[in-house]
Amino acid sequence: MSDTVETGSAGSSSVDIRTAWLSDEDLHLARERLPIVYVDAVPVRTDAHGLVLSVGLLLRGMPDGSISRAVVSGRVLYGERVREALLRHLEKDLGPLALPKVPASPQPFTVVEYFPNADVTGFHDPRQHAVSLAFVVPIEGECAPSQSALDLIWVSPQEAVTPQIQEEMSGGQGRLVRMALAHCGLLL
Amino acid sequence: MSDTVETGSAGSSSVDIRTAWLSDEDLHLARERLPIVYVDAVPVRTDAHGLVLSVGLLLRGMPDGSISRAVVSGRVLYGERVREALLRHLEKDLGPLALPKVPASPQPFTVVEYFPNADVTGFHDPRQHAVSLAFVVPIEGECAPSQSALDLIWVSPQEAVTPQIQEEMSGGQGRLVRMALAHCGLLL
Amino acid sequence: MSDTVETGSAGSSSVDIRTAWLSDEDLHLARERLPIVYVDAVPVRTDAHGLVLSVGLLLRGMPDGSISRAVVSGRVLYGERVREALLRHLEKDLGPLALPKVPASPQPFTVVEYFPNADVTGFHDPRQHAVSLAFVVPIEGECAPSQSALDLIWVSPQEAVTPQIQEEMSGGQGRLVRMALAHCGLLL
Amino acid sequence: MSDTVETGSAGSSSVDIRTAWLSDEDLHLARERLPIVYVDAVPVRTDAHGLVLSVGLLLRGMPDGSISRAVVSGRVLYGERVREALLRHLEKDLGPLALPKVPASPQPFTVVEYFPNADVTGFHDPRQHAVSLAFVVPIEGECAPSQSALDLIWVSPQEAVTPQIQEEMSGGQGRLVRMALAHCGLLL
Repeated sequence: MSDTVETGSAGSSSVDIRTAWLSDEDLHLARERLPIVYVDAVPVRTDAHGLVLSVGLLLRGMPDGSISRAVVSGRVLYGERVREALLRHLEKDLGPLALPKVPASPQPFTVVEYFPNADVTGFHDPRQHAVSLAFVVPIEGECAPSQSALDLIWVSPQEAVTPQIQEEMSGGQGRLVRMALAHCGLLL
Repeated sequence: MSDTVETGSAGSSSVDIRTAWLSDEDLHLARERLPIVYVDAVPVRTDAHGLVLSVGLLLRGMPDGSISRAVVSGRVLYGERVREALLRHLEKDLGPLALPKVPASPQPFTVVEYFPNADVTGFHDPRQHAVSLAFVVPIEGECAPSQSALDLIWVSPQEAVTPQIQEEMSGGQGRLVRMALAHCGLLL
Repeated sequence: MSDTVETGSAGSSSVDIRTAWLSDEDLHLARERLPIVYVDAVPVRTDAHGLVLSVGLLLRGMPDGSISRAVVSGRVLYGERVREALLRHLEKDLGPLALPKVPASPQPFTVVEYFPNADVTGFHDPRQHAVSLAFVVPIEGECAPSQSALDLIWVSPQEAVTPQIQEEMSGGQGRLVRMALAHCGLLL
Repeated sequence: MSDTVETGSAGSSSVDIRTAWLSDEDLHLARERLPIVYVDAVPVRTDAHGLVLSVGLLLRGMPDGSISRAVVSGRVLYGERVREALLRHLEKDLGPLALPKVPASPQPFTVVEYFPNADVTGFHDPRQHAVSLAFVVPIEGECAPSQSALDLIWVSPQEAVTPQIQEEMSGGQGRLVRMALAHCGLLL
């Protein structure tokens, strides 16, 4: 889950957000008292039949301090539509030419509950309790990982579930990728 | 959406919530700055084949000041699982003997985005921006509407979509009921 | 539901189908004895955020003899993947340049049960009992209605649910369109 | 997938089926020419919050000749509703007192495509091409495996994914169980 959600996007005029956001201090306080609304987007490349060929994994600094593989993730801001947040985070992490195909339906394939206590659900975020709507998002353009992301790799569904790749993902991200593949009928 | 979420439940020991909640004042401040995580539960009675026979509609004071028909709804608290919040609000509104069957999957049938501005999505809550996970929940026990709910009626899928019943629901609740019926294959 | 499923596609080499199909006579016999596997695809145009802007409605001869508005629909053949059938019928009805985005997940938004008896589910096909997997499919290219389709119009979600348009759809097609809009959060 | 679908149920009057079924010979012929409509039901036991505690696995003769662990599965008959087929197969395999809670929505969590060729999807049925709607079904009563099922065990989500249990499931059944657990947020 990204730690740099607000930077650079607060002044955006492309989304219809009409109210002030939180200062870093206020956000810190709110995170101790309220579950925070997140989105997770699992980027995939598909063939002409919609079959998933590969999954995109970012490399970045995680809330737990590790450098890990992860999917696109971030906060939904006050006044922002869920699909606006999805597009904003996808552009932030994959660049402006990624052409993500945000789903027509708001129904997520799952809801991920991140807790400061790693034992509650296995999805772990030391900073906060976050409730995240998770989507599989086909990517049709060219990706250029930006900002907080150090790197982006595309792996096949077979590779994504290998112990080697799974071990590069902390905080439950490896499990989220396998849940996305299961939803796409591709869990081995 | 209910206005009396915290009252009476903060001391509950049946849910694993380990941290302080918000004071009324803090909640008011947070609601001006962060989207709030909600759950909506559409109570239904089904036959032995799972077919929906009727939909439960509460009568209660709504955020917009009206007395309206509405489904079960309320906040997810800090540290609380989504399914715990569902069960807590169902028991609060339908009584302790309602025997609600909370779904095994966390996948909601839709995500409802309530905005202070009624024009954004048509789902309206003057108090806040709320992102609500919506579920259809079969009820198997006896219901006794409690606390904020003044009344509970059960209507058939056919009745639920009549102009008469739809007009008794404000803030998009009538539309949410029709979306739930569509999800159950029963939209006329 | 289309009546001209097999014609012209049986010789296709683009799908991996390795066995003989049914003669018209055999298909007629099978339709009296077995439920037939179908797909329904509701074509939509979306904006960059994935929001549905319009719904595509074909004009064509229906199983009940009427000329009606309808979505893309047809049989899944022996040996054919569901996503292959979706793409085949979309290309058949919308032309080869439609660029339909078949979903990455095999989870349909609903399952439509068509019966020869119009009273069972309200979804009616006088020829057969069909079980149809229904998907919303974004269309990105240029459409040229072909073969059995006489015409294609794009209507807004608001227009699609007007009595005028709804009355042009028989056999439950109008209801299916409203169920698709409900799934996309756009039922009025 | 069960091999004894029709026996004993064809005379049932509890479902509204108005037409003749297939003789064994006709069924054999149809299976060589048409995809067959199936349902798969993954039986689960849940706690009061709907959380899955255990998964029910039958032991039975499989289409491939093996004795394997499997979920509840079988054909949808001509004229039969999908939810009727689900209930019929659940009662056939788990006994009349199992009290299965068939979901209110017809949306399956996935669609499983069984092919005679094990390489197409990994879901294998040597007898036929079957398209199966898969549901997670909570069981509330007492189970007494009947007819074709030799045995029924309940295993925790953790046990269900161990190599030992997974190896007892052929034809893709182990994968289907893991997909069901992923849908319930419980894939390890």
